[in-house]
Amino acid sequence: MIDLPAPEHSFASDNAAGASPEVLEALAAANIGSALAYGDDRWTRAAIDDVRRTLDAPAEVLFTWGGTGANVVGLGTLLQPWQAVICADSAHIVVDECGAPVRFTNSQLIALATPDGKLRPDDLVAPSHWLGSEHHPQPRVVSITQSTELGTLYTVDEIAALCDAAHALDMVVHLDGARIANAAAALNTDLRAMIRDTGVDAFTFGFTKNGAVFGEAVCFVDPSLAASAAFVRKQAGQLVSKSRFVAAQISALLADDLWLRNARHANDRAQDLAQRVSAIDGVEVCGTAEVNAVFVRLPRPVLEVLREWSFFWEWDAGSDLVRWMTSFATTAEDIDRFVDGIRVALRLPS
Amino acid sequence: MIDLPAPEHSFASDNAAGASPEVLEALAAANIGSALAYGDDRWTRAAIDDVRRTLDAPAEVLFTWGGTGANVVGLGTLLQPWQAVICADSAHIVVDECGAPVRFTNSQLIALATPDGKLRPDDLVAPSHWLGSEHHPQPRVVSITQSTELGTLYTVDEIAALCDAAHALDMVVHLDGARIANAAAALNTDLRAMIRDTGVDAFTFGFTKNGAVFGEAVCFVDPSLAASAAFVRKQAGQLVSKSRFVAAQISALLADDLWLRNARHANDRAQDLAQRVSAIDGVEVCGTAEVNAVFVRLPRPVLEVLREWSFFWEWDAGSDLVRWMTSFATTAEDIDRFVDGIRVALRLPS
Amino acid sequence: MIDLPAPEHSFASDNAAGASPEVLEALAAANIGSALAYGDDRWTRAAIDDVRRTLDAPAEVLFTWGGTGANVVGLGTLLQPWQAVICADSAHIVVDECGAPVRFTNSQLIALATPDGKLRPDDLVAPSHWLGSEHHPQPRVVSITQSTELGTLYTVDEIAALCDAAHALDMVVHLDGARIANAAAALNTDLRAMIRDTGVDAFTFGFTKNGAVFGEAVCFVDPSLAASAAFVRKQAGQLVSKSRFVAAQISALLADDLWLRNARHANDRAQDLAQRVSAIDGVEVCGTAEVNAVFVRLPRPVLEVLREWSFFWEWDAGSDLVRWMTSFATTAEDIDRFVDGIRVALRLPS
Amino acid sequence: MIDLPAPEHSFASDNAAGASPEVLEALAAANIGSALAYGDDRWTRAAIDDVRRTLDAPAEVLFTWGGTGANVVGLGTLLQPWQAVICADSAHIVVDECGAPVRFTNSQLIALATPDGKLRPDDLVAPSHWLGSEHHPQPRVVSITQSTELGTLYTVDEIAALCDAAHALDMVVHLDGARIANAAAALNTDLRAMIRDTGVDAFTFGFTKNGAVFGEAVCFVDPSLAASAAFVRKQAGQLVSKSRFVAAQISALLADDLWLRNARHANDRAQDLAQRVSAIDGVEVCGTAEVNAVFVRLPRPVLEVLREWSFFWEWDAGSDLVRWMTSFATTAEDIDRFVDGIRVALRLPS
Repeated sequence: MIDLPAPEHSFASDNAAGASPEVLEALAAANIGSALAYGDDRWTRAAIDDVRRTLDAPAEVLFTWGGTGANVVGLGTLLQPWQAVICADSAHIVVDECGAPVRFTNSQLIALATPDGKLRPDDLVAPSHWLGSEHHPQPRVVSITQSTELGTLYTVDEIAALCDAAHALDMVVHLDGARIANAAAALNTDLRAMIRDTGVDAFTFGFTKNGAVFGEAVCFVDPSLAASAAFVRKQAGQLVSKSRFVAAQISALLADDLWLRNARHANDRAQDLAQRVSAIDGVEVCGTAEVNAVFVRLPRPVLEVLREWSFFWEWDAGSDLVRWMTSFATTAEDIDRFVDGIRVALRLPS
Repeated sequence: MIDLPAPEHSFASDNAAGASPEVLEALAAANIGSALAYGDDRWTRAAIDDVRRTLDAPAEVLFTWGGTGANVVGLGTLLQPWQAVICADSAHIVVDECGAPVRFTNSQLIALATPDGKLRPDDLVAPSHWLGSEHHPQPRVVSITQSTELGTLYTVDEIAALCDAAHALDMVVHLDGARIANAAAALNTDLRAMIRDTGVDAFTFGFTKNGAVFGEAVCFVDPSLAASAAFVRKQAGQLVSKSRFVAAQISALLADDLWLRNARHANDRAQDLAQRVSAIDGVEVCGTAEVNAVFVRLPRPVLEVLREWSFFWEWDAGSDLVRWMTSFATTAEDIDRFVDGIRVALRLPS
Repeated sequence: MIDLPAPEHSFASDNAAGASPEVLEALAAANIGSALAYGDDRWTRAAIDDVRRTLDAPAEVLFTWGGTGANVVGLGTLLQPWQAVICADSAHIVVDECGAPVRFTNSQLIALATPDGKLRPDDLVAPSHWLGSEHHPQPRVVSITQSTELGTLYTVDEIAALCDAAHALDMVVHLDGARIANAAAALNTDLRAMIRDTGVDAFTFGFTKNGAVFGEAVCFVDPSLAASAAFVRKQAGQLVSKSRFVAAQISALLADDLWLRNARHANDRAQDLAQRVSAIDGVEVCGTAEVNAVFVRLPRPVLEVLREWSFFWEWDAGSDLVRWMTSFATTAEDIDRFVDGIRVALRLPS
Repeated sequence: MIDLPAPEHSFASDNAAGASPEVLEALAAANIGSALAYGDDRWTRAAIDDVRRTLDAPAEVLFTWGGTGANVVGLGTLLQPWQAVICADSAHIVVDECGAPVRFTNSQLIALATPDGKLRPDDLVAPSHWLGSEHHPQPRVVSITQSTELGTLYTVDEIAALCDAAHALDMVVHLDGARIANAAAALNTDLRAMIRDTGVDAFTFGFTKNGAVFGEAVCFVDPSLAASAAFVRKQAGQLVSKSRFVAAQISALLADDLWLRNARHANDRAQDLAQRVSAIDGVEVCGTAEVNAVFVRLPRPVLEVLREWSFFWEWDAGSDLVRWMTSFATTAEDIDRFVDGIRVALRLPS
């Protein structure tokens, strides 16, 4: 038992945080008069423009409720059922969406083992041998996550190389950007360089984990790939009825780079946390905190005590590896409290 | 051209309205500290209890983002792909969801012509002859809408009779309640009488069209039907990440019967509007405004002028029948302005 | 009880018949040496050529196991999941395939009531109003059956008019030709006139009901529509492993117009049967025997006695309407016996 | 160039062989009179009994056209879309069915790397951690192939151990038995010991590769798992119209153990071939010929020459590993000729 006040903002996940104050203000400000539903309103038009400006490209942009929905709309637009998706076996679309992409697209996932959650151009070679034969699923989409589920990052060059390899095989690249803001902030880059100029064809632009109440954007950098996207979104149950309320949030996050500031704040807190806990005897920090996740090993009994006090998830069932995540809302005091709790759990002098 | 101020709240649809102030306040109030995502939070637990209390039954309750999603989760939980849904051919699941229920459930819709959007027990007889033979889709779900897409209402007894007929054939009854509040208010009844005691097995409890920013509940009155519902919801991309924000809205709407007061307000405004326009020469009100929709015929050129001034939808492409909808937000001034505009469009003296 | 020998070939259905002797001979003759599976063999290449010659067009031709499979491959190649199929509500794809087309294509069926199982150009008008809006399933395929499930026939001009209407709306026409041979024979026409020159885009060329052990062809008159057909067929489990054995049958049926002779024989026997039974007091022949089906009303107790003696199906559950079908194998003696049995069942003097 | 007569029966695959004479005779013998379609005939009833007798269990038995179809019907009956299949990544359902199982069941495949195409009980541990959480696909079916695609065999004890492990996790075991006859012959066992007593829940009983024209059986050892199987088969387009013709073949193969004799013949020829070619300088036989496949490495130019003369497939695109398969039809002369050809291709003295 830890008899100390727990952090106000836990380290369970970045979606355990609430919403940025600016987002809530924008949402309230949009609550005036009538606005046609389903996106035919001025807020939606403005937010689409904001996304295009951020990307610096005339992309096709569709807003959706959530992240699984956004991935499903993106993949569903790019795929035929006899085509397949090459991805890492740690990908959210493989592990954490209860099979939604497969159920909705009917397409098979070719889930590859990777050392770090990242695909390399060479990973496309073996699946490409299936191309052209009716006996095999036809690899069409290469789906990567940036930043990855393992807290790692693709460099801009790595994304570009993967896109080149995919395009050479007549495949397209989909990027699950649930934490694309954390990636852009960590790489000190922008979407123009990281997405548009690398050749990414479609991506999920995530806002939920970065300060929104809800809301993601599915973006097709080349609009010609998106001819069916509006129908696919509707079929996927992802067409937001009162669209102004998602659009207002997105515009608020894109204004004055709030999305990047939120992400940078989260990333910085992760570095703080990693630094602080790596100094504690008995805590092993695994890898580098490249974005807003810190992977840590602790003796299992210590983990149990800590989790009861301030919840976080097991990373692998039954292992002693855990993931602590920071968010835009994490404070220095949250970290102080957490570090104090860890020391108590480890029975170290404070 | 109509040179008058348009109504602040148009009559295009009830989802063109914004959100109730109480809803926005509740949403903002939920923005404190951490809360585990995906429903493991105190707001979600409380809102589930609120729904159960409203229904007066220990139902299985799952929140979803939107109405199409809620229908898909409800139907997807009740159906196997070789089973079929009996419904009216005017149903939202047939006409207005881009085929989402079919795509997600893989089940065939048996869409029947009706005079008024309502199914009768006799409608189940012909499809029931398919039962038991592997050659035919197997009717399993009877899906009705309350109030219907045509602005009509089932009485409580009609629902009960349909449920009895369905159950006698080993079918279950699903109710699309996107406007269930308007129905309950118009019938001056409650969910206990209209849903629980009639034998409805599962229903969508709609909040979006009744003052929420977003949010619907899928309710299984008999929880034993819902064993797979959580998996189905996740696969449908309808598991709300920051669930507290949908739950807080629903609790706010269920508190002090705000949901019924909002609906009654909308219904009353529809009656006002119907009464006012029926007194105008050249306007034909079709049917009775049983809930919050007024169906009207106007000369087509007049319609065009009016629509340009204050938008509303054509009901059938190219016909001169239109649907005007009121909402919780409609004001007496909105009606005054609209009536004035109609008179101008008809070139009547004001 | 009827104490007479029953017909050797019952009138239950044309698929209750066996196979043409020529077909069995061809099948046995193909059993020599090795032949690569899945269609890369000389029998398959020859049979594809035979189909093309019969159609007089360089169509894309794919063989399948059965009729449901052929329809699924045809429709699945033409459709995206957000598109829909316009068809008669008596169509095999609606009534008799257990929902296979919906399950496989994920597309909604727009099943229209018709007086005679036949669609008219006007039937496309209402569904076409859904085109372009993401809220509605998008009608893309018009599927007709020739001859229809109700034993009726489209004239060549009717097919052409329907194709013109469909093409004008950017829809394509699919024809379920499980009994296309009976239709061609009855209309005294050929596939060039009835299919190619009318503008039918894709069709099932049925052989099973016309003397094959098994086997159907899916034909895309315009091969550019068939880019994904091979993958769709494989996914549908319809790629025949030892393809030579289906190909040999089809070549045998197309040689010397055996397919038309078989069909003409069946049609002629239906006319004989209709003529003979219409002369019996107490038997009401409904409609004309345009192809190989005779629809008849008989007092229900008489039906029951007859069915026990020589089985046939009820047409509508519980009604006194039945369908008697003839096939290539039906003999004059079969008809004699059946007529004798009917007289006994009706307690008429023989 | 090899200027010698090629083998009459190539070593490309066991499905390049034709049909056993007994099978063709049985097929012809079934061509008498009428028989109701879709399985309501005496041949089908008898063949179901024959399968049950072979298995020595009152299994639910359904015949299908082909092997992909049989797998799809088996898996589709056992699975809900939110459930998943654990299998080897070399499995036919992963590699060689163009994604048909995924398309039809909507379920995700968890395809695991294995050294030899065989799953072990330990392989179930990691996927089992997903059980119970709505975020993850729910592993429900463990699918194995016997004999495997890599020409290896599970022992009876290995199957039993895997079934025990699966059942302990509330999973069921599906066995793809496209070559189950070769496995039973090689293990010198029967289906009672290998399937029924090990606890396999459902399996494909393959006949096509073992002397049939076409036809497979899907068997559910515990019929209570098969409640929906008939509907699933119809939806999968696998209900054989003239069922007597598949049933007659299966009865012929099960009579007097023809299925085992055919398989033993094929296995023996594979051992002959392996022995003969392993004695040739420049040919490397990989692994043991446990059933009817011989894996061989040859210099690539030699392979090319050989393939042009008597076709066989590359095993991995671009590698110098090939698979030669024998069948019930392979003769000693076929092997003599092939060995002679290899020597010529290697420029060895004959």
